[in-house]
Amino acid sequence: KFTKKPQASINAVTSINDGLKRLYVEKLKPLEVAYRFNEFGLPLLTDSDFNAKPMVMLLGQYSTGKTTFIKHLLKCNYPGAHIGPEPTTDRFVVVMSGPDERSIPGNTVAVHADLPFSGLTTFGGAFLSKFECSQMPHELLEHISFVDSPGVLSGEKQRTERSYDFTGAISWFAAKCDLILLLFDPHKLDISDEFKRVISSLRGHDDKIRVVLNKADQVDTQQLMRVYGALMWSLGKVLNTPEVVRVYVGSFNDKPVDETAVGPMGKELFEKEQSDLLVDLMDIPKKACDRRINEFVKRARAAKIHAYIIRQLKKEMPTMMGKAKTQQRLIDNLEDVFTKVQTEFHLSPGDFPDVDHFRKVLSTYNIDKFDKVKPKMIQAIDEMLGHDIPDLLTSFRNPYQ
Amino acid sequence: KFTKKPQASINAVTSINDGLKRLYVEKLKPLEVAYRFNEFGLPLLTDSDFNAKPMVMLLGQYSTGKTTFIKHLLKCNYPGAHIGPEPTTDRFVVVMSGPDERSIPGNTVAVHADLPFSGLTTFGGAFLSKFECSQMPHELLEHISFVDSPGVLSGEKQRTERSYDFTGAISWFAAKCDLILLLFDPHKLDISDEFKRVISSLRGHDDKIRVVLNKADQVDTQQLMRVYGALMWSLGKVLNTPEVVRVYVGSFNDKPVDETAVGPMGKELFEKEQSDLLVDLMDIPKKACDRRINEFVKRARAAKIHAYIIRQLKKEMPTMMGKAKTQQRLIDNLEDVFTKVQTEFHLSPGDFPDVDHFRKVLSTYNIDKFDKVKPKMIQAIDEMLGHDIPDLLTSFRNPYQ
Ligand SMILES: Nc1ncnc2c1ncn2[C@@H]1O[C@H](COP(=O)(O)OP(=O)(O)OP(=O)(O)O)[C@@H](O)[C@H]1O
Ligand SMILES: Nc1ncnc2c1ncn2[C@@H]1O[C@H](COP(=O)(O)OP(=O)(O)OP(=O)(O)O)[C@@H](O)[C@H]1O
Ligand SMILES: [Mg+2]
Ligand SMILES: [Mg+2]
Repeated sequence: KFTKKPQASINAVTSINDGLKRLYVEKLKPLEVAYRFNEFGLPLLTDSDFNAKPMVMLLGQYSTGKTTFIKHLLKCNYPGAHIGPEPTTDRFVVVMSGPDERSIPGNTVAVHADLPFSGLTTFGGAFLSKFECSQMPHELLEHISFVDSPGVLSGEKQRTERSYDFTGAISWFAAKCDLILLLFDPHKLDISDEFKRVISSLRGHDDKIRVVLNKADQVDTQQLMRVYGALMWSLGKVLNTPEVVRVYVGSFNDKPVDETAVGPMGKELFEKEQSDLLVDLMDIPKKACDRRINEFVKRARAAKIHAYIIRQLKKEMPTMMGKAKTQQRLIDNLEDVFTKVQTEFHLSPGDFPDVDHFRKVLSTYNIDKFDKVKPKMIQAIDEMLGHDIPDLLTSFRNPYQ
Repeated sequence: KFTKKPQASINAVTSINDGLKRLYVEKLKPLEVAYRFNEFGLPLLTDSDFNAKPMVMLLGQYSTGKTTFIKHLLKCNYPGAHIGPEPTTDRFVVVMSGPDERSIPGNTVAVHADLPFSGLTTFGGAFLSKFECSQMPHELLEHISFVDSPGVLSGEKQRTERSYDFTGAISWFAAKCDLILLLFDPHKLDISDEFKRVISSLRGHDDKIRVVLNKADQVDTQQLMRVYGALMWSLGKVLNTPEVVRVYVGSFNDKPVDETAVGPMGKELFEKEQSDLLVDLMDIPKKACDRRINEFVKRARAAKIHAYIIRQLKKEMPTMMGKAKTQQRLIDNLEDVFTKVQTEFHLSPGDFPDVDHFRKVLSTYNIDKFDKVKPKMIQAIDEMLGHDIPDLLTSFRNPYQ
């Protein structure tokens, strides 16, 4: 399914990804730094953000087959993988490409500049001790990383609390991931309170969610219909989106489908479903590349609007007297500043930052201390959006197209 | 499945039903009439209420196979049945046992003392012209009646409004029915606004609802899983009960399951589901008989409590002066009257009527005008509950047991 990486055709820049990284460093980042865009909104991008592979996260009750699923796709165990009928995986494991097989403990991962996980330090030491990065050279991992996770707890077990913010961590990964697979098995259907909290923490990423009803060959067809129906019944209420979530029904391990319970039709169905899911997975890198471009463009526009707002604020400041008073008035009437920028540059109000958040951050600054906005910097962004990015797209195309 | 009607073993009373009817006329009805129980709560029972067969109502979009389903069970068309791919059934049709084949128009049905449908007159002439009773001699109809219904309208068609209170009529039938089947077909899954209103009007009868995903052999197995999943997804939200509704997946007509799309496994599954549904249907008369006894006993208890309340009210009325004032005070403090009765006879507050409703009805009466409560009448009820009904049950047992 995967085509090889595209051949380099312009010196220095070897891919869309490389091109974006370079444009960021040369044109966008200087503007972001100059007007503190990162402190008002999105943190600065690092090399590791550009190098990060699309990620797929697996979530589900213990023993639903999350680790086995990854093993099935890789056709081998990842370093440190444990599979068993009792709760086995006790930590978050990012499975990714690396020069040789090794497991890097969470505390080390978090300080590694090459790895895009420094943000996880906010979850504290208790979390980091339950986090690791498992690396190995592998063709598939060149294109996708996986996040294996500890089983979501059911009813009774919940009482022994987690020592860290479990749903917070999942929410963090959900934002970074391209696909989130919720695994169920026919004997573990109940959506516990912790599972409900987990699903709530995925809000805003509903479009990334897929469901796998795994081990479907362990019950007969009529039972499977009951189980599947009950799953959809409760998922509809918990996910609370009008669109029906895609559920893949099958058995995702290396053994052939057990025909004794489900018969040849079941086997055929499961095999179709399994291949549908693989096709969806293989589609991720292509979609991720498109999405990265899209987000980069959105970010550039947002940074430009940010610069315009700073420019307008500085323009309204007096040169000599009454600075503090004017600053306060500007902050109080920030809406007016936004409207002026919007009218002057024919911008859509929906593209503007949240005014209350902006006001809050701005009040910790001295408007006078901001650098004067240089037209050259804004021109650079316009050039980038109008020429560099389109050129990049025609030179390279999405390598996964 | 059906055993023949039990043989008469005591003269005059030939079945549980007959026994209840006689007990009602001899012991319960006199008390209900004397203290106006019917005007405070449940209307008096008539012979037709005792003779009514358990009913099964079919609901669903047009062309989902409601009329065909009834034909399938009867192994013949009912008088006046129309089957076709366009909307065909344009009225509510009660299909029931009768000496010969005939269709009775709604206006006639409503005035027929033998038929338990006089309550439908409240829905007016526009409804009655869309209502009929279809009779024929038939072994199955000896035990169950069916209510065929006009297809629920989908999106666009809804704009042409019904000329009568459609959901009101359905709600009326739902209360009288023992089972409500919601039919869907794989190409007609959407739950329109009218369908949502119909489902809301079934509230309180959730335990009677079953769902049929009909014509399941018209799509391949993978599509069927999608369709079935989508159905459960939306039903879970619309029905809004924690228990998963039972869905029967199959094809309920006379033709054998079409194996081309669903294969032998699908065929086997559908046949299992079809026979499960038949077993459930055949179970209705037995359950209906148990329920009738249960409701009769509950009714007798309620009527007795009603008599106690009247007795207490009369006891607190003065013999000569200040009657109007006392009546007003009693009505205002009806809760106290209830509490006194409750304490005196060791009754549960949950068995008492709704105090506000009682107050409202009572204020249209003159307490003084109620007959004095005769201890004999109450004794008759106690005898009935303590001896007659248990005797009846040992003499006859549920004929469907
Ligand atoms: N598709 C499958 N069919 C049958 N058995 C399976 C399947 N997938 C996994 N199993 C078995 O289920 C058990 C649990 O598998 P695994 O350890 O992969 O689950 P897990 O979701 O990673 O659990 P945990 O949350 O505890 O890490 C193992 O015994 C495994 O062999
Ligand atoms: N199980 C089935 N498999 C295939 N076709 C069916 C099945 N049941 C019914 N049909 C076909 O579907 C069409 C509609 O059937 P029918 O008239 O019984 O539906 P209905 O629900 O009563 O519709 P209406 O609400 O219009 O009265 C008919 O052409 C019938 O032959
Ligand atoms: Mg695991
Ligand atoms: Mg019909």
